Amino acid sequence: MRLFPKRYHPPGTPPGTLVSAAKPAYPVSCQWIACEEGALTLHDGLDPEAVRARMAAGAMTWVRVQGRPSAEWMRAYGATLALHPLAQEDILNGGQRPKLEPYDGQLFLVLNVPREEDGQIVHEQLYLLRQQNFLVTFFEGARDPFAPLLERLKESRIRLRRDGLDYLFYAIVDTAIDHSFPVLEALGERIEDLEEFLVEHPERQVLEEIYALKRELILLQRALWPHREVVGRLLRNEGEWFGEGVLVYLRDCYDHTFQILGLLRSYREMIAGLLEIYLSGAQVRLNETMRVLTVIATVFMPITFVVGVYGMNFRYMPELEWRYGYPAAMALCALIALAMVLWFRRRGWF
Amino acid sequence: MRLFPKRYHPPGTPPGTLVSAAKPAYPVSCQWIACEEGALTLHDGLDPEAVRARMAAGAMTWVRVQGRPSAEWMRAYGATLALHPLAQEDILNGGQRPKLEPYDGQLFLVLNVPREEDGQIVHEQLYLLRQQNFLVTFFEGARDPFAPLLERLKESRIRLRRDGLDYLFYAIVDTAIDHSFPVLEALGERIEDLEEFLVEHPERQVLEEIYALKRELILLQRALWPHREVVGRLLRNEGEWFGEGVLVYLRDCYDHTFQILGLLRSYREMIAGLLEIYLSGAQVRLNETMRVLTVIATVFMPITFVVGVYGMNFRYMPELEWRYGYPAAMALCALIALAMVLWFRRRGWF
Amino acid sequence: MRLFPKRYHPPGTPPGTLVSAAKPAYPVSCQWIACEEGALTLHDGLDPEAVRARMAAGAMTWVRVQGRPSAEWMRAYGATLALHPLAQEDILNGGQRPKLEPYDGQLFLVLNVPREEDGQIVHEQLYLLRQQNFLVTFFEGARDPFAPLLERLKESRIRLRRDGLDYLFYAIVDTAIDHSFPVLEALGERIEDLEEFLVEHPERQVLEEIYALKRELILLQRALWPHREVVGRLLRNEGEWFGEGVLVYLRDCYDHTFQILGLLRSYREMIAGLLEIYLSGAQVRLNETMRVLTVIATVFMPITFVVGVYGMNFRYMPELEWRYGYPAAMALCALIALAMVLWFRRRGWF
Amino acid sequence: MRLFPKRYHPPGTPPGTLVSAAKPAYPVSCQWIACEEGALTLHDGLDPEAVRARMAAGAMTWVRVQGRPSAEWMRAYGATLALHPLAQEDILNGGQRPKLEPYDGQLFLVLNVPREEDGQIVHEQLYLLRQQNFLVTFFEGARDPFAPLLERLKESRIRLRRDGLDYLFYAIVDTAIDHSFPVLEALGERIEDLEEFLVEHPERQVLEEIYALKRELILLQRALWPHREVVGRLLRNEGEWFGEGVLVYLRDCYDHTFQILGLLRSYREMIAGLLEIYLSGAQVRLNETMRVLTVIATVFMPITFVVGVYGMNFRYMPELEWRYGYPAAMALCALIALAMVLWFRRRGWF
Amino acid sequence: MRLFPKRYHPPGTPPGTLVSAAKPAYPVSCQWIACEEGALTLHDGLDPEAVRARMAAGAMTWVRVQGRPSAEWMRAYGATLALHPLAQEDILNGGQRPKLEPYDGQLFLVLNVPREEDGQIVHEQLYLLRQQNFLVTFFEGARDPFAPLLERLKESRIRLRRDGLDYLFYAIVDTAIDHSFPVLEALGERIEDLEEFLVEHPERQVLEEIYALKRELILLQRALWPHREVVGRLLRNEGEWFGEGVLVYLRDCYDHTFQILGLLRSYREMIAGLLEIYLSGAQVRLNETMRVLTVIATVFMPITFVVGVYGMNFRYMPELEWRYGYPAAMALCALIALAMVLWFRRRGWF
Repeated sequence: MRLFPKRYHPPGTPPGTLVSAAKPAYPVSCQWIACEEGALTLHDGLDPEAVRARMAAGAMTWVRVQGRPSAEWMRAYGATLALHPLAQEDILNGGQRPKLEPYDGQLFLVLNVPREEDGQIVHEQLYLLRQQNFLVTFFEGARDPFAPLLERLKESRIRLRRDGLDYLFYAIVDTAIDHSFPVLEALGERIEDLEEFLVEHPERQVLEEIYALKRELILLQRALWPHREVVGRLLRNEGEWFGEGVLVYLRDCYDHTFQILGLLRSYREMIAGLLEIYLSGAQVRLNETMRVLTVIATVFMPITFVVGVYGMNFRYMPELEWRYGYPAAMALCALIALAMVLWFRRRGWF
Repeated sequence: MRLFPKRYHPPGTPPGTLVSAAKPAYPVSCQWIACEEGALTLHDGLDPEAVRARMAAGAMTWVRVQGRPSAEWMRAYGATLALHPLAQEDILNGGQRPKLEPYDGQLFLVLNVPREEDGQIVHEQLYLLRQQNFLVTFFEGARDPFAPLLERLKESRIRLRRDGLDYLFYAIVDTAIDHSFPVLEALGERIEDLEEFLVEHPERQVLEEIYALKRELILLQRALWPHREVVGRLLRNEGEWFGEGVLVYLRDCYDHTFQILGLLRSYREMIAGLLEIYLSGAQVRLNETMRVLTVIATVFMPITFVVGVYGMNFRYMPELEWRYGYPAAMALCALIALAMVLWFRRRGWF
Repeated sequence: MRLFPKRYHPPGTPPGTLVSAAKPAYPVSCQWIACEEGALTLHDGLDPEAVRARMAAGAMTWVRVQGRPSAEWMRAYGATLALHPLAQEDILNGGQRPKLEPYDGQLFLVLNVPREEDGQIVHEQLYLLRQQNFLVTFFEGARDPFAPLLERLKESRIRLRRDGLDYLFYAIVDTAIDHSFPVLEALGERIEDLEEFLVEHPERQVLEEIYALKRELILLQRALWPHREVVGRLLRNEGEWFGEGVLVYLRDCYDHTFQILGLLRSYREMIAGLLEIYLSGAQVRLNETMRVLTVIATVFMPITFVVGVYGMNFRYMPELEWRYGYPAAMALCALIALAMVLWFRRRGWF
Repeated sequence: MRLFPKRYHPPGTPPGTLVSAAKPAYPVSCQWIACEEGALTLHDGLDPEAVRARMAAGAMTWVRVQGRPSAEWMRAYGATLALHPLAQEDILNGGQRPKLEPYDGQLFLVLNVPREEDGQIVHEQLYLLRQQNFLVTFFEGARDPFAPLLERLKESRIRLRRDGLDYLFYAIVDTAIDHSFPVLEALGERIEDLEEFLVEHPERQVLEEIYALKRELILLQRALWPHREVVGRLLRNEGEWFGEGVLVYLRDCYDHTFQILGLLRSYREMIAGLLEIYLSGAQVRLNETMRVLTVIATVFMPITFVVGVYGMNFRYMPELEWRYGYPAAMALCALIALAMVLWFRRRGWF
Repeated sequence: MRLFPKRYHPPGTPPGTLVSAAKPAYPVSCQWIACEEGALTLHDGLDPEAVRARMAAGAMTWVRVQGRPSAEWMRAYGATLALHPLAQEDILNGGQRPKLEPYDGQLFLVLNVPREEDGQIVHEQLYLLRQQNFLVTFFEGARDPFAPLLERLKESRIRLRRDGLDYLFYAIVDTAIDHSFPVLEALGERIEDLEEFLVEHPERQVLEEIYALKRELILLQRALWPHREVVGRLLRNEGEWFGEGVLVYLRDCYDHTFQILGLLRSYREMIAGLLEIYLSGAQVRLNETMRVLTVIATVFMPITFVVGVYGMNFRYMPELEWRYGYPAAMALCALIALAMVLWFRRRGWF
């Protein structure tokens, strides 16, 4: 994920201007789902006629768009789906901060859905637009995170019958938010691996792993932080969009947003702690290195001086003539070395 | 405790789905306690008939489940005990953030109960589900932290008669929260031991102890932080679950949650201070090491050069022929060494 | 941008005193725009007669002043434009904190408009003064950031007709706030360039770039932080200045202020992380340097001592006479060196 | 003061259980003071009869207990003094977080009273229990901090007559809170001494003083932080305990709690700054040390090599036979040394 | 300014006790100003008769006291000026935290007025006591910061006539608060000077300047932080002391308090950044130093060993007899040195 994720118009562009993203738009695949009394019928593609008819009849309908649409697509279908111009612009631009916008008669919700791919965290966005009995979702990226949800929804038709779109809306939000858990679990494992590795192999590449983890956490925090506020506002139920029955479940979802931020916070503190420990260890090892050097130098410099003395070529050096001069010099060296070693030992150096 | 403590369903699973935890569930032991007018009668096991009868009669009953139940257990007894589906799911998954959930006619409370075991802090969770005169508690783990409470409750039957389940509920919450105190006391002692040790033995393993303490504190903070809010919400008494008489005691318990967080905060600051001091000490010792090396090198390098000079084999070196050349050279060396030492002393190096 | 950006009067000057800024004022260029039913007519210069007439008639008028006016200018035109004395003083002084001031019948708004110029971030200020149907804007600096806005306003005459000055006001605020995005994008790229560069070239000048980025971010944070509060207060719509139709758009703009602060925050954390990594790398490299030195010294000091010994001139040194003394001494040296190298290898030094 | 100051019952003990502290309780001395119309009469000891009579008559009475009572004492007198069971438990346990508890018809207040003793800060606690016209105070520790207050109260009988127990209560709280000032003044002086000392003597023991100060500040912060909230709640006067006349004075006291926290905060920042400066200084001195070493090594290693060369015993070394070989070699050494010194000077090393 | 600025009574002294400060009180000079219909008449000294007469008549009067009064002064004039006892005590003690106290019928305001003197920031306090049409100000220190205000007030008599004491009060507060700007400007310049200096001269004394700046900022923050709250409370206009006309100006003043805190915050971050950069630079230079040392040692130690070998006196050393032994040995040394240099170059060391 790039540090600056947003695409934006040149400042001064009027709001609601639709411009395709510079990146080529993913191929878009659509699907609409008719939620009849306890039965979900899936239709591929997007039939404007059918959609308009269902909308007029107030029949429960979910339109799913996968991939990021182009400006042309939006101009073609935006009006059919009755999307607010500002919502259209946000969907085209992508990289939004998660938010909840009540437009007149519409509820617009943006959420981040993180995912792990080859050890990298990819951030994709989900856009929900709810009109009374009509729900449109846009999800960037190629993978479909809601397939298992659809499967399971078919089995829990009872709730759909009772709470209708409220429950469907909740189930999508809950799925999106819970996608943080596998990502956090993987990160938690990376941190714990690093923790163990650090103790045994205090090498250079550890630093890069620490930094990589830190970067992921900063970006993840930025992406997930606003969820708490967004779900909190959903819970306050200002526009009376949700029935009592579903609010209990939304509270559960709200609780998850707190849990996620709590995990992120402790991860960040752990990483900070690991860096401190790593640096402290480096400092300690530096000290040990220097002690080895100092001990060696302190032992050998004086005795090298001694042998240097007896290598001088002065004519009058009585010691050189002595019978036991050589062993005496050697003994002097040994004495000096011993004294040095003892002195270091007394200072507690080894 | 692992960094990522929660077990979760794959995102998209409908709420209230019951799946056994991957870890083999502990063997579950049940007990139900009939609280008659001033008398506590304990029954081992869980007799659905009897329980249903008491519940219908509105008789004060406490059902205790020790160990983590399996999905089968929950399916078998969950309905008998009238547990809310979301509560059932949370209990099966474990690793919840402490929280207070008011379901319709039920109050669901999750608390963390830390415990020290072999110098490690183990985090176990307590789940309380209160229906009017009916209380169910689930406690993970094998040890029973409420045995002394039961003993003492028998003696204070007066309060039980007057405040009924309110008092029982409070007493359990209070016991759970006060379990942090022995853990904090043990940590406080470890920090103080480390403090003393640090002054005398500035060795490498200190770092590991500092990091271990830091990790425990981060996890403990994450586990205990939400208690303040949870007990605070109990105190606000939104659903009018508690009588005035017990609220005074809950306030005392609320105060304990603050005390615990205050202790944690000062522990963390202390640990941060210890690390700083440790590093500063390492830095200072490095400096001392380098000074020793520098002094030795600065004293011996010049004089080794001098003796090297008179070890040269030039034919025409008048000093070599002098009668007192040797002592003169030695005196020169002594002079140089002395000058160096004095220079260091003037700079305040030793 | 200087650390202390404000010009101020000597304390004790009565409020509303007009003094020209010490810096020579930029040449001022004026323009007034008549917003008739769907048509924008631009007039260069400032014709007091015409302006007063339009103001009296309640006709929608926008007066634009580009460059920083002098005290003389203000005294000449301030009254004509019905500017509040405190607003006049703020405009002359410049370097204001972004703020929203409701004067009687006037709304005074100050915003910061950052811009990148030759890799430096320049902070310029925009002052808006709205009276019922009359809008005056002052923009410091020579470049005109609202030219594209004017172009586009001509095309979206419909909104101007419906929401009148509300929409115009919003469009100017939105343009000013969105000017942060290109600046942030450029900064984000600089940080990512630095990130890559750091891994490959851990050189000294990196430090200066880190510091330069940090400084920009501190100043940018100071400049943009109050925007959130200012736009938030606009949204609360205390004086009922805005119609419902425009409030939806203002909420979008409010959301941008959050997005900008979120980006700034993650940038600052990233920069802090980069500095940490840089320092950690330096520490690690120092350690490596010292190990090279230590290994070299530890290997050569002992063997240099050995050859020194056999360079001594004692008369009675039996080894010197041996047939294989020389190879034996060499072998001893090789043995010592080997032992040292093995010892370092066992300690894991290379 | 220990990191973990609280004594607590084993979790699960019912609230209000009275157990003597493990530490031997200080000898307890009691005194009761009858506050008649403008006259204070002191009686040593505690006469239950007289106390009960006065309480029944609603006569203003202050019972002072000095030292920490044992469980036996509490059982003997607790009921006479009409102390709430939770208050009794808190007093016996000690080490409470400062708090304000309104029990039915009672106001229970806990405050920390720090004191300096032999350069150590001792934390003692004051417990106040106010019933309508009846005040009981418990103060741990042997010294009596309220003796001067009693002296002065005799002189200001007017206030006592007018505001009765309100004023007495306020005066005790104010005295307790103001006991922080001499402690803070002493700490401020220690910090300033350290500041001066640091500049002149950058030695090792400075670290220990910094850490000792830091520890005191962490503990002091923990002890005094809740005072602000406690006095703030007194000011809100929820139970209408205080008359208007005394509230003005309580506000003054509230202001002191802010002042104390402001001082603590700036002390902590100062200490953090001192540590940074100390470490920076150590780093700088290390650099200086290493430069000395490097200069010495760089000057002497090359010239030692040169003299080593002419100490070799090769048969065919023409320089050795030259007439001016020796002075030439010496000149070469001087040249090399000079070149090295000049090179370092150009790099700005000295 | 000292870390602990407050003078305080021994704890237990009743509030409102007047004791002279230990420091000799500055000589006090008084002045009273009659604000008649548009005319200011200044009278030196303090004539109790005249003052009492004006107060009784409700005539607008400003009594200015310059310097810190003694307890005797206060006892003599305090009652005449109708000062509240707590205000009298605060004025005598000095070193107060800025605050706003509403006494009955009086408004007591304390503000800090920083001033630069010889590169040091001096903190002096201003005390304002407003009774309906009667204003008393006390300003510590010898210099008169309100002289220019008085000059200018004479010219703006119109406002004085309309808003009376409200405007005068505001003007004094505004002047006091704006005295922070020149101090902040000077500090900003010191920081920027330091910034430039740091790049060119990374010497030791930089540390002391950084620390000195940090200390000033900590004390300034402590002194100015409460102003925001104090002026904010003035704005809320609880006692209805101010008319609408002056509130607009007070809001301007409130804005200045924010601006001041924003500047202080960015200064502190800048200083923290400078310290980091300084330390990082020191670390980098240390590394460079060590590389020089290591390169020198690594090049010369092996070749010094080689020449040492040929300085040995073994009888049977065939190389010594060779015709080209000497050049061969020299070539070997050159080869070794070259290899070492190439190895370092490949590692990117220079």
